Formats: sequence, structure tokens, C-alpha cells
Amino acid sequence: MRRLAAVAAAGLALALEALPALLRWLRAGRRRQPLREVLFFPSQVTCTEALLQAPGAAPSGCQCSLSHGESSLSRLLRALLAARASLELCLFAFSSPQLGRAVQLLHQRGVRVRVITDCDYMALNGSQIGLLRKAGIQVRHDQDLGYMHHKFAIVDRKVLITGSLNWTTQAIQNNRENVLIVEDEEYVRLFLEEFERIWEEFNPAKYTFFPQKKRGR
Amino acid sequence: MRRLAAVAAAGLALALEALPALLRWLRAGRRRQPLREVLFFPSQVTCTEALLQAPGAAPSGCQCSLSHGESSLSRLLRALLAARASLELCLFAFSSPQLGRAVQLLHQRGVRVRVITDCDYMALNGSQIGLLRKAGIQVRHDQDLGYMHHKFAIVDRKVLITGSLNWTTQAIQNNRENVLIVEDEEYVRLFLEEFERIWEEFNPAKYTFFPQKKRGR
Repeated sequence: MRRLAAVAAAGLALALEALPALLRWLRAGRRRQPLREVLFFPSQVTCTEALLQAPGAAPSGCQCSLSHGESSLSRLLRALLAARASLELCLFAFSSPQLGRAVQLLHQRGVRVRVITDCDYMALNGSQIGLLRKAGIQVRHDQDLGYMHHKFAIVDRKVLITGSLNWTTQAIQNNRENVLIVEDEEYVRLFLEEFERIWEEFNPAKYTFFPQKKRGR
Repeated sequence: MRRLAAVAAAGLALALEALPALLRWLRAGRRRQPLREVLFFPSQVTCTEALLQAPGAAPSGCQCSLSHGESSLSRLLRALLAARASLELCLFAFSSPQLGRAVQLLHQRGVRVRVITDCDYMALNGSQIGLLRKAGIQVRHDQDLGYMHHKFAIVDRKVLITGSLNWTTQAIQNNRENVLIVEDEEYVRLFLEEFERIWEEFNPAKYTFFPQKKRGR
């Protein structure tokens, strides 16, 4: 009986020896961390030509005097340009030429792009909205008294990009701003639901003409 | 030898029997989910009197005609009023009377409140900034060309509240906005670092007078 116990103990010890490996395996599973990044602005002004090359263009050996390193803007561009299937944009103001080029590139690559924006800002000088529409991208906008003040994007129904940043050069280069880039099922689901709700509500079939003027902010 | 193997196997089986319990324990550890909430605006207009009672006041049996249920604004107030030690606010625009009262309540309770804001918006009609200052709360603001456009709060160095929402009644009641409330060490660390960087940079000892005028947005 004593021998049985001893051998059982040995067996147990053996099994326990496997435990660290098991725990390592479990931990490794958790270590495959989904994407999460925080960007702060103002962004250093860097050259983004290499990122924004049209498909088939010769590789850019840009010689301009800007830095060619990473910046908050280049990271934001990378996160967007990772899109392969879909891009939802819900943006109060959109006038940054670099971000506009990135969205047009994605559209050319066959990514399904949909844009929701605020009617007061889309017609301002320098807005990208007209250019996106000309390129054939679907855009919808509000008509009510409140502002469509969101600033978020959803990449491939997998990554949420959200924060305080309006997509304008002023904001990117001069303002204190933050952007979260996060691969998170629950956040993406909630923000996609919000996007679809607004997309349906701003269906042009429901537009009225000469709506009331807006006030304040 | 065969018996040894059998008994070792029995021991192994015994240890493996403990495995589900071990896995349950590991999973339970992961189940104690930290706070994470997403609020969308416009918020339903609800009565927030019960939440904003001064310490020692008789409990409010408010009879007003507003709904007394939960709303995005009441959830935001709850997240703020949970503060026991510190509150950092970094806000482009702050004019909501309810949110102003919440911050003053926290200050009265001995919570260390610090506010960073944008100089262009703090002097507007209805701004809460003057009231907070009068109450003895420390406020610092920018003086440069860019906007201090963040809209985040950090509660007890544990919870980050961030999004597109300026703390104005217009935004709360009329705009499409989002706010994340998230208990996350890494996010809190990064946003606290940003707060301290700006707090130091906006030290009044460094203010210059009659700075350059701002342009655009």
C-alpha cells in the first residue's frame, strides 16, 4: 500500500511537471495580443508619400526635406491602409489631403468605403467629401440641429479607430488630440451598430430641403 | 514495471482530474472584468438631481416632469462621482451645469481635481471654468495656436473616460457623440502621462501675455 502511494505520488509529480508547460501554453494563448495603440497629436510632420503610393506605381524614393520616419499621422494611415474588405467612416470634419488619399486608395483597391459626415462641414473649403463623392464613394450626412460629431472609423469590421481628432491638417499638426486604435469585438460591434443606425437615418430618400438652421455648439 | 506504469498512470489521471478545477480558477480570474462601458449621445434628458445631492442634504424625492431613469449623461455622472482620491480633466469645452456640479461636489468631498482646458472656450458664456476656479479648483490652459482639443477624464488613476464629447449641454442633448469608460492600466498610464506633460507645459509661470491670435480649426 505504501509502495502504491509512493508510485502514485511519483505519477502526480510527473503530471505536475507538465504543469508549467501547460501554464506557458495558456499564457502564450493570451499573449497573442490584439492590436491596441494610442496616438497623441500634434503629429510630427513627416513624409507619407511611400505609404500613399497608388497600386502599380514605381516605389517612391522620395527626396523631400521632411523626416521619413514614423509619426502619429503615419501610424493612423497604416491602420487605415490595412483595410482589405470594408471601411466605415463617421467623421465630423474631413479635410486632410493625406487621409483623403488613403481613403481613395482603399476605394480603388476594391474596399467597400462608406462615409457619414456633418452637413455643415462637408462643404467648407478644403473638405475631402466632394472629392470622395466624385471618386464614387458613398457619403451620407445629417440634416438636423445637432452635429454629427463622431470621429471614428471601423476597418474590416475588426478594428475601431476613435478619439478626439477631426481629420483636418489643423488638428493633426497643431492640436492636442488623441486616437485609440483597438481590435476589440465588443467595441467594434457597438460602434458598427451606431454606424448602421445613423446610415439608415441619413438615407437620402429621407432628406428634406431647406431644413432649419443650426445654432451654437 | 507494468504495475509501476499503471500506478503512475493512475496518479496522472488523478492530477488531470484537478485540471478542470485549475482551468475554472484561471477563467474565474479572467472573469472579474474591469469596468468598460460605451455611451452614445444625444442623451435622453433625465433628471439628475438625486445623483447631484450635496453631502448631508436630505434625499431628493424630485417630482419634476423629467424621466428619472438612466441615460448616457447619468452614466457619465456616475462614473465621475465614483472618484474618491483624484480627478484629472482635460477638456476642450466645459459648460454643462450638471457636469460642473458633479466636479464641484467631488472637490467639496476632498477629491484632488485638476483641470486643463482651451483658452478660447473657457471664457465663453456659460463656461463652467470660472465657477470651478472660484470654488478653488486648479485650472490651466493653453496659449498656443493649436486647440487643446482633448476630451478626457481620469478617475482615481484607474478609469479613463474619453471620446468625442465636449462637456456642453448642446453636445449632450443634440449631437451624435461617443464616450468610452474603461478601467485599463495601460490606457490610464498613457493618458496620465499626456495630462502631466500638458499640465507642466501650461504652468502659469510660463504664460506670456498678448500671445498670437489663433486661426482656423
